[in-house]
Amino acid sequence: MTGPDLWRELGQQLRVDAVRASAEAGSGHPTSSMSAADLAAVLLADHFRYDLDNPKSPANDRLIFSKGHASPLVYGLFRAAGAISEEEFLTYRELGSRLQGHPTPVLPWVDVATGSLGQGLPIGVGMALAGKRLDRLPFRVWVICGDSEMAEGSMWEAIEHAAFYELDNLTAIIDVNRLGQRGETMHGWDLSYYSDRLRSSGWHAIEIDGHDVEAIDAAYREAESSGKPTAVVARTIKGKGYSKVEDQEGWHGKAVAEEGVQELGGIRNIRVDLPKPEVLDGHRFEPAGAEWPRYEVGSTVETRKAYGEALAALGGERGDVVALDGEVSNSTYAEIFRDAHPERYFEMYIAEQQLVAAAVGMQVLGWKPFASTFAAFMSRAYDFVRMAAISRANLKLCGSHAGVSIGEDGPSQMALEDLAAFRAVHGSTVLYPCDGNQTAKLVAAMADLEGISFLRTTRAKTPVIYSSDEEFPVGGAKVVREGDDVTLIGAGITLHEALEAAEALAAAGISARVVDLYSVKPVDGETLREAAEATQGRVVVAEDHWAEGGMGEAVLSALAGVELSFAHLAVRELPGSGTPDELLAAAGIDAAHIAAAARKLVQAEAVAR
Amino acid sequence: MTGPDLWRELGQQLRVDAVRASAEAGSGHPTSSMSAADLAAVLLADHFRYDLDNPKSPANDRLIFSKGHASPLVYGLFRAAGAISEEEFLTYRELGSRLQGHPTPVLPWVDVATGSLGQGLPIGVGMALAGKRLDRLPFRVWVICGDSEMAEGSMWEAIEHAAFYELDNLTAIIDVNRLGQRGETMHGWDLSYYSDRLRSSGWHAIEIDGHDVEAIDAAYREAESSGKPTAVVARTIKGKGYSKVEDQEGWHGKAVAEEGVQELGGIRNIRVDLPKPEVLDGHRFEPAGAEWPRYEVGSTVETRKAYGEALAALGGERGDVVALDGEVSNSTYAEIFRDAHPERYFEMYIAEQQLVAAAVGMQVLGWKPFASTFAAFMSRAYDFVRMAAISRANLKLCGSHAGVSIGEDGPSQMALEDLAAFRAVHGSTVLYPCDGNQTAKLVAAMADLEGISFLRTTRAKTPVIYSSDEEFPVGGAKVVREGDDVTLIGAGITLHEALEAAEALAAAGISARVVDLYSVKPVDGETLREAAEATQGRVVVAEDHWAEGGMGEAVLSALAGVELSFAHLAVRELPGSGTPDELLAAAGIDAAHIAAAARKLVQAEAVAR
Repeated sequence: MTGPDLWRELGQQLRVDAVRASAEAGSGHPTSSMSAADLAAVLLADHFRYDLDNPKSPANDRLIFSKGHASPLVYGLFRAAGAISEEEFLTYRELGSRLQGHPTPVLPWVDVATGSLGQGLPIGVGMALAGKRLDRLPFRVWVICGDSEMAEGSMWEAIEHAAFYELDNLTAIIDVNRLGQRGETMHGWDLSYYSDRLRSSGWHAIEIDGHDVEAIDAAYREAESSGKPTAVVARTIKGKGYSKVEDQEGWHGKAVAEEGVQELGGIRNIRVDLPKPEVLDGHRFEPAGAEWPRYEVGSTVETRKAYGEALAALGGERGDVVALDGEVSNSTYAEIFRDAHPERYFEMYIAEQQLVAAAVGMQVLGWKPFASTFAAFMSRAYDFVRMAAISRANLKLCGSHAGVSIGEDGPSQMALEDLAAFRAVHGSTVLYPCDGNQTAKLVAAMADLEGISFLRTTRAKTPVIYSSDEEFPVGGAKVVREGDDVTLIGAGITLHEALEAAEALAAAGISARVVDLYSVKPVDGETLREAAEATQGRVVVAEDHWAEGGMGEAVLSALAGVELSFAHLAVRELPGSGTPDELLAAAGIDAAHIAAAARKLVQAEAVAR
Repeated sequence: MTGPDLWRELGQQLRVDAVRASAEAGSGHPTSSMSAADLAAVLLADHFRYDLDNPKSPANDRLIFSKGHASPLVYGLFRAAGAISEEEFLTYRELGSRLQGHPTPVLPWVDVATGSLGQGLPIGVGMALAGKRLDRLPFRVWVICGDSEMAEGSMWEAIEHAAFYELDNLTAIIDVNRLGQRGETMHGWDLSYYSDRLRSSGWHAIEIDGHDVEAIDAAYREAESSGKPTAVVARTIKGKGYSKVEDQEGWHGKAVAEEGVQELGGIRNIRVDLPKPEVLDGHRFEPAGAEWPRYEVGSTVETRKAYGEALAALGGERGDVVALDGEVSNSTYAEIFRDAHPERYFEMYIAEQQLVAAAVGMQVLGWKPFASTFAAFMSRAYDFVRMAAISRANLKLCGSHAGVSIGEDGPSQMALEDLAAFRAVHGSTVLYPCDGNQTAKLVAAMADLEGISFLRTTRAKTPVIYSSDEEFPVGGAKVVREGDDVTLIGAGITLHEALEAAEALAAAGISARVVDLYSVKPVDGETLREAAEATQGRVVVAEDHWAEGGMGEAVLSALAGVELSFAHLAVRELPGSGTPDELLAAAGIDAAHIAAAARKLVQAEAVAR
């Protein structure tokens, strides 16, 4: 069987399988799978070039189910392709099964987790950008989107960027089944709403009946040769093929009866051999070599600038490092990388969701993306970071302009929640350097870290206190000053305040140990415990961050069970504008406040005695 | 002086003032202010109806500078309107000044903080919705947008929603000055890109020269009568009026020399009397009265369902309560409110940024918006929540489907970072009920809370343990079982696990105290300290959340300085699918694990003795 007959039968098989899997599990989204089954069948049978035995091959086409809830359809495709057995297929949604409620990369043929709507297309933009500009291979990126998720602004960021970057290797297949979770979408079956908006955004758009397999095939051919990013806008019927649920409200995310299998003509076992792509190696950039920045102890430099300089050096050392920025590269200093390696730099404009999503897409192809913007604006992409962790993505993020120390620009530009937000990402690494040499070492380390790593940089120049040869293992902390009366813990801007406080305390006869908590996660519990024990449990933490979820709580977690006299200096009132020094003082996290807190701890115990 | 002469002179004054303020401060965004000065001048002089003495009047037009970095222009407008003095004007960006680097509501004429781009227009949609559907008043909402921020997807969420809800009272003024922070935007001066995309989204769009005051005036008149949401797409010149910086790269966010004042014709002191709106009272909904839900102790109910039932009751009691949801109202149970109060319910579709932004806009008009979606997807709007705190917004958010206990849907749908994220919002309240009656009381309390409050609800049914008369003050905690060997702390789903663990421990002769931490922030330090002291410092916290930033760290912060034997059970590995019970067990946060951790604490000490 080939051509239209195959496509139709395969479409029925995929519908039957969606019904079966969900019925077996007692939950799932069969109706959302059934609407897209013909679109998926034609793709699998005749358009999607993929080597199942080599899923990481850069020559493969990529397929993303942006509407990740249609997971029964995804798994039905893998069954039809022979990648998973009937037995495994029926483990859908069971504990330990690779066939989770929404697709994740526990399956080797799933590149990224989906299930938070509106993320697949922006990630596809990243893959397509990699295909055009990094790997330089002819693979295509296919993204199956739901109509409901077209309401997510992130989809329109993706659409704008795809047109701007002329990604004619990207095809969005929009399954317009009219019905969202709780009722009709804003536009129902008004296909022209989608296609007009897409065309005015620079896309080619094709409207079809999404159950007419010949029209689907023709549309995919047109997409392959249109010379533009192309959307196949397909009118479909939710629950198609089982009359009881077809185009009905109230069936979203619900298993339907096995009786649907009967009406769909029973179980099929069609096996499709995916066309394999020509084996091609992706383009690689020759490392040109680079001088790593080395800053003189005693000089001053912004850690954000050291980030840019180190990243440029890293790019000189390794051809797999790429950088992206959200239209603030002259503030984050990603521009230094851009100038050194223009072919590996991507301007993502003021679209932080697309910024992070593009990086997620690129790392699927094996690139090492570093994405930067103001740390405050990373919060715009928090859901993308959350999902990237479920995707097991290797993502390197840099947020500049942390804390009140940015000064005059005021609270909208100050990241004061970023440590909390990034600590609460599964498997994340959170780094917060205080000087240029430390920044350079941490940037180098990030390249090989697994998972999501986040580097927090500071706007202002800070003194260089470490020699350029010093090492900073991830998960470590540095005792930068010995002392036995009290421990002062800082990082970034507050480390310098802590050092200044220690000087003042020394003059008053108090011996303060200062710990640089540059690795906020993982945190160096051993060094912290040693410090606490060496200073009679007296610990002051100062952080340029809200009191919740940041360094103070990371320290308390590491020291749980240790007897402490603890002071936590953090930002507790809403800051305004002012100079950096004024704002550090107003927030109570400057040297004077640290010294006062330390004195209080020492004296309180003296009184108690 | 009136008409075009006034507009032109006022535009020059606003440019001069932007130069002056920034030069005095040594920082700021004069060039971004200068491009929009004529657009603002015509608006102020002849279109913006506003009673400066009564900024909260619901009859006032609203003005949002979505491009908040143009703050010198905002403050120049207030100076021209006589609201701020020359003396105050020159305090721009100083510590303690109301004239911060980006506008915030410390000034009574600023409704919402801006400065994170792409937020003003979605907030404007909320205000315009309130104008049409809640207050039912003829005020207009004017939003001055930058061209760079049109790359934010949130702007296109707003554009889609404005058209869908037929918000002809909304005007977006797009200042297309071609230059972003570090160079040209994607579309430069291609006005048609913006207007085509807007028109295909259902808007009326007018392209003009943004320095032709008569064209500006005509466009505003057209906007006022177009019958559609309307965009004035204005070609402008960044730094307009000072030849050294006009249309030049490299001048974004930089003060320019006072010599610009000369070229602009020197200081002016034009004073504009704003046209006042007719004094009108907004529509109010008559509370129809309502039966509050009361659940039988020993029965079971989902806290998410109790949310919906309580919210519907609250709406029956108070006419100022409104609800919004992100297309999951049959999961969050906001649909119960919708069915009871359809006029006060707003479907925001799958656009969480717009969901939160609309709520921010509505609360400006004095409404009490409750916005709901899955707690995991609140992360999509995190930057909006962050900024809402800076706006001093009174926002009530409900996130359902918290934690691994949702079961089969898998990790993409599980909120495991929401407690950390919401705790790290300035002035926030974080509530996490375990049963239906507690949920109802907390929903009632949220209506009168200041700031951002977040309620976390659970998917599964949980036993009702509290009578419907019990009170749950915000900031409190409940000792639900007395005991003196060990304290078990839970909330939401884990409170029930803790109770079950206490039973098992009792059978083994261990007396466990159980504390319900329903108020995660503010946290009840006194009850926690009493519990720790009563149980020899032995404390177990179990939470359906990542280990970072949630209940465990909230407890450690509250107990800092108390000697503890502490065990922290939280989700530490990436979950997959499974039944709720399987996943609670796999994560190590079920009754068995809690009991085991408690036993270990008790035994460890016995061994030590």
